[in-house]
Amino acid sequence: MNANVMTDAAPAELAQALVARFGSRSVLAEPADTLRYRRDWHGDVEGSAVAVLRPADTAEASAMVRFCAEAGLAVVPQGGNTGLVLGALPTSARAHVVVSTERMNRIREIDAADFSAVVEAGCVLGAIKEAAEAQDLFFPLSLGAEGSCQIGGNISTNAGGINVLRYGMTREMILGLEVVLADGTVWNGLSTLRKNNAGLDLKQLFIGAEGTLGLVTAAAIRLVPKPTRTETAFLALGDRNDVMALYALARRECCDLLSAFELVPPEGMMLAKEADPSLVLPRIAEAPAYALIDVAATGSLDLKPLMERFFELAAERGYVVDGVLAASEAQAADLWQIRDGMNEGQARRGVHLRTDLSVPPSKVAAFIEEGMREMARHLPDCLPVAYGHVGDGNIHFNVLPPPGLAREERDAQMLLAKKTLHAIVDRYAGGISAEHGIGRLKRDDFATRRTPVQQQVLAGIKALLDPADLFNPGCQMASPRDGSDVTVF
Amino acid sequence: MNANVMTDAAPAELAQALVARFGSRSVLAEPADTLRYRRDWHGDVEGSAVAVLRPADTAEASAMVRFCAEAGLAVVPQGGNTGLVLGALPTSARAHVVVSTERMNRIREIDAADFSAVVEAGCVLGAIKEAAEAQDLFFPLSLGAEGSCQIGGNISTNAGGINVLRYGMTREMILGLEVVLADGTVWNGLSTLRKNNAGLDLKQLFIGAEGTLGLVTAAAIRLVPKPTRTETAFLALGDRNDVMALYALARRECCDLLSAFELVPPEGMMLAKEADPSLVLPRIAEAPAYALIDVAATGSLDLKPLMERFFELAAERGYVVDGVLAASEAQAADLWQIRDGMNEGQARRGVHLRTDLSVPPSKVAAFIEEGMREMARHLPDCLPVAYGHVGDGNIHFNVLPPPGLAREERDAQMLLAKKTLHAIVDRYAGGISAEHGIGRLKRDDFATRRTPVQQQVLAGIKALLDPADLFNPGCQMASPRDGSDVTVF
Repeated sequence: MNANVMTDAAPAELAQALVARFGSRSVLAEPADTLRYRRDWHGDVEGSAVAVLRPADTAEASAMVRFCAEAGLAVVPQGGNTGLVLGALPTSARAHVVVSTERMNRIREIDAADFSAVVEAGCVLGAIKEAAEAQDLFFPLSLGAEGSCQIGGNISTNAGGINVLRYGMTREMILGLEVVLADGTVWNGLSTLRKNNAGLDLKQLFIGAEGTLGLVTAAAIRLVPKPTRTETAFLALGDRNDVMALYALARRECCDLLSAFELVPPEGMMLAKEADPSLVLPRIAEAPAYALIDVAATGSLDLKPLMERFFELAAERGYVVDGVLAASEAQAADLWQIRDGMNEGQARRGVHLRTDLSVPPSKVAAFIEEGMREMARHLPDCLPVAYGHVGDGNIHFNVLPPPGLAREERDAQMLLAKKTLHAIVDRYAGGISAEHGIGRLKRDDFATRRTPVQQQVLAGIKALLDPADLFNPGCQMASPRDGSDVTVF
Repeated sequence: MNANVMTDAAPAELAQALVARFGSRSVLAEPADTLRYRRDWHGDVEGSAVAVLRPADTAEASAMVRFCAEAGLAVVPQGGNTGLVLGALPTSARAHVVVSTERMNRIREIDAADFSAVVEAGCVLGAIKEAAEAQDLFFPLSLGAEGSCQIGGNISTNAGGINVLRYGMTREMILGLEVVLADGTVWNGLSTLRKNNAGLDLKQLFIGAEGTLGLVTAAAIRLVPKPTRTETAFLALGDRNDVMALYALARRECCDLLSAFELVPPEGMMLAKEADPSLVLPRIAEAPAYALIDVAATGSLDLKPLMERFFELAAERGYVVDGVLAASEAQAADLWQIRDGMNEGQARRGVHLRTDLSVPPSKVAAFIEEGMREMARHLPDCLPVAYGHVGDGNIHFNVLPPPGLAREERDAQMLLAKKTLHAIVDRYAGGISAEHGIGRLKRDDFATRRTPVQQQVLAGIKALLDPADLFNPGCQMASPRDGSDVTVF
């Protein structure tokens, strides 16, 4: 069967042709087998697909993309499917496949002398971190989903996480990429060079593109020495408005050794306890806000005096009224469990508004203050939970509806909450997706916020790299031939 | 006079029209006045231009670019004109102007709470660093030319310098950009957000583009706390091949506080002394190589024990046979004067081969070893000087011809040296421009090294953003309508 003649073929025929060409290990066509690739991480939304393709290596990925291009089949790249914005959800009205990178999970090389590695797109983030640690190295990308998210997805969404303030976003950790382009050509840009001013830095186009410009199949990544010691502290603030003053103090006193600075609201403790009643909460004064801080170093540097001096100054200036310093790794893990359990606690409360907002760091306190005030005024029965990576100006300002609301009323309240928060963010020249990406969930919210220049360049680059609109149509931008519509607040 | 009809106008008429429109403060038309903008930094090459435009602000820059677009005048953006690859040299066969950003030198804002600033493209790098320091902040971009280079040029070349191993290239320090596009439209992307995953990161296109895609007029930059203490050491290595083992040890023992790690060859000391006979060289054992190291911290961190432990281990492992730790800021400045004076010493020796090579850090020692061997074999009378930012894998492997050679013979020897070194770099999958850019000097060397994919995307993006090939024609890529040819080895 010639792929060229299949453009108008029925899904079943296309699936058959794919199986015939690539085999049943590489092609899943049964709806029961493809379900987990067609559902988003929360299980809220379900899509459809002609088939799920699981290439074993770059050569097969290239052949599959070429086949799809010839058949006019759209391609939705998917990593660990842990994204929060429906960027990997196959919902196009056009015939389309999911290409899952899960079988491309080899760590091709770790070069300890070079502080770099080359990994395939389907490597689970946690597996990369473990492999690095086995060689006394550290890959600093750290997220809640690291046990299942894949590096190809991290790259495609330019993932953030808790260590951004020290090590940057995923973008800063990528030295080179290998990408299958829309016609199946493989671009091998897997350089581990630290410095290479060769004009246009092509890899930048694919980082954060959410699979709309190509299929990332491998990456050269930057590693750092593995920290030999970490200090974890949980501090009670006297006033939430001091959070950025405390951050600035930590940034100066702990220097470039500050790895994480998370704002945790009191509701976060409650939600974490709901998720795991056996969780031991720290004995700490009740406070309007807490800061969870990591400071880490390699070599023989002694962090204790540094932490003590920081606490002393923070207390002296009245930013901090109480605090706990983890005495062991187990205690540190318990403190971090508050941060992680908080997310699970929210998930257990059912459908709610999850946001991923950013403002200039100096505006964080004002933004939260204003957001809380507006929520109390317009949605007094909802529970707002504002937390996150405040050192980067990134706030997950989530809103939980009261229990027992009818679906329509709940959705209306969540929509109002979102609009209200977005309006404040816009006033602070902030961003409505700090680290999660755009996907399909935020596509329309972005469309109204792009400048004509951005829109024009974006469309031009899409037309340049993917003239047939093959890759992930409907993700990031509405696709003229797509017609999909994901109704979500 | 209508700009539309001027495409074929004579240079004198065009210059007159520009003066009439923008005034003589903003337009220099006399050859004597424009000379310094038409000569490269070394004074080796001289170009021509219809005029030099010096916009006072973004609005005037936009009007000027629009005028040029309508008149079919090409635009060569220029900052401090300190580049080393002729990227800002006006040599087009087409009618063209230089647009100098020198008058756009306002620091629009420094936000200490936000660790960010907004600066105009013509701000001298050193002035930005000083303004940051006045607010107890630090802008980490550090180069020899910082007293005269401008931030717009740093951005356009994605400049590197001595602090890259800690803080990254210019690319990593840029939060947002303001750019005048080819039709005169101003793209305002001056966000100071730390995290903003809004799909295509438009600013990445202009960083390192050397003014071929637009005119950068302002930037939002990332600042860090100003270091409160710095330790500077000058170490004698027993064996040059241990340099990367010593680097790895420094990277681990000094953690993320290691700011600079420069390889200095013994010839470097000699050249620095030639440049400034009053320079006091450190009392240190003669050695085949030296490392110049900076470790810096903010807050109250004590760096002495850290340095002592590092020296102890370096000596124990036999990497280091002798060393000097600066006891004062003045001593530290003297040690850094070796590094800076080395460049001046080379300049005084007259025309020579300057390179800006990079290999994966783990290959640095092997690369230098091989390069020295090949030079000794093929060019035994030349003086090779290999030094640089080896922590980033960046080696300036320069070759000084023997004195008294006839020009043709000298050029032939330098060309042979370049080809020999490039061949080794290619074998190590290295780069031929680590931090200086491509410009016109390396254009042809890059043309042969680009993959078809890179070439195609590069040309496509150029056509998208600058369809009339208005911006810096002949820079980075040969321009079909340009015809300029800069003959250099």
